[in-house]
Amino acid sequence: MGVIENLSRTIETRLDAQPKESYVASLHAKGTNKIIEKVSEETTELLIAAKDIDKTPGGAQHLVDEVADLWFHSMVLLAHLNVKPDDVLTVLEGRFGESGHQEKARRAK
Amino acid sequence: MGVIENLSRTIETRLDAQPKESYVASLHAKGTNKIIEKVSEETTELLIAAKDIDKTPGGAQHLVDEVADLWFHSMVLLAHLNVKPDDVLTVLEGRFGESGHQEKARRAK
Amino acid sequence: MGVIENLSRTIETRLDAQPKESYVASLHAKGTNKIIEKVSEETTELLIAAKDIDKTPGGAQHLVDEVADLWFHSMVLLAHLNVKPDDVLTVLEGRFGESGHQEKARRAK
Amino acid sequence: MGVIENLSRTIETRLDAQPKESYVASLHAKGTNKIIEKVSEETTELLIAAKDIDKTPGGAQHLVDEVADLWFHSMVLLAHLNVKPDDVLTVLEGRFGESGHQEKARRAK
Repeated sequence: MGVIENLSRTIETRLDAQPKESYVASLHAKGTNKIIEKVSEETTELLIAAKDIDKTPGGAQHLVDEVADLWFHSMVLLAHLNVKPDDVLTVLEGRFGESGHQEKARRAK
Repeated sequence: MGVIENLSRTIETRLDAQPKESYVASLHAKGTNKIIEKVSEETTELLIAAKDIDKTPGGAQHLVDEVADLWFHSMVLLAHLNVKPDDVLTVLEGRFGESGHQEKARRAK
Repeated sequence: MGVIENLSRTIETRLDAQPKESYVASLHAKGTNKIIEKVSEETTELLIAAKDIDKTPGGAQHLVDEVADLWFHSMVLLAHLNVKPDDVLTVLEGRFGESGHQEKARRAK
Repeated sequence: MGVIENLSRTIETRLDAQPKESYVASLHAKGTNKIIEKVSEETTELLIAAKDIDKTPGGAQHLVDEVADLWFHSMVLLAHLNVKPDDVLTVLEGRFGESGHQEKARRAK
């Protein structure tokens, strides 16, 4: 089983744990708006990391860490809203083989 | 090979294609700021889809589609900046087994 | 009458104009989600302008222009939702004289 | 003198106060990235307030408060970067009298 599938199961399992014992459960308890704010916050940190990538040693690794934070919190948002987080993979897989501009055209609909 | 690894290779391959023929190449040619704007735009669409999930039939699928768009564009950003997009999986994998609050404590550093 | 008050009246007047003839009316017709997306887009452009301020001549003016775009679109959002845009001034005025940390404490509630 | 002009002067005066005594000074000391993150955070709160306006009593006032927070923090960002915050008014004033679509066309350049 891949990393995203594993993480997806882990997140779903933790949703109803004690908020004190699980970060996922604490987000789930706080509700949709709080999780949305976290997703947005991680995006901003990602944007800053991208702009600053050449300013600090380890800038590239920092950027990857921020993208991971963003993906993680978006998976928590999905699980919170009763969607299987690894359904994202199914969507991404469906886009393979498409040329980029086919892809763009489809998304523009 | 998993979906993310495949997509990662595809994106890297397309970077230097003709912009007219590849959406990835067209983003790569436009530069960091334009890709950042796309990532941010996808995040906003994701937030709206999360708020509206119960308003329309297919709301859950629409949300998953938006998360996929966000992940895709964040992978393009990484590739554009010479980072392997599937390095995100390595970071996410390193967080397995951690309890959520250990995770949170680490990120708070 | 001040600039914000004037602009507030202008925006309210234009809301129900023909969308073809007025940008405000076209946003109003597109609805809340579209206006929200514009506000978010302007914020991202502002963040990029702030990061790039020293990279280009006229960087400071570009930043001011982006802040103006953000304020303008947030005023359109208010008017679209039946709120007087210049009510923002009343809130800002109420914060004068407060020390910054009083302000922060109040907002933290 | 108008509200924005007054607030602009106040912010500029506080920049170099003791961070412990002034919220503006504490933001100024933390630097551009931290202020950018606050601006982005306020935008997200504004978007949520717009989506939730009809869900709670006082929703309209809450939205205005969030817009005020956003304007305030964008003014702090300008002052931090040595730009006069009330220059935003000059830009907004220059747009009066323009029809909306003239405005849009100009911004599209």
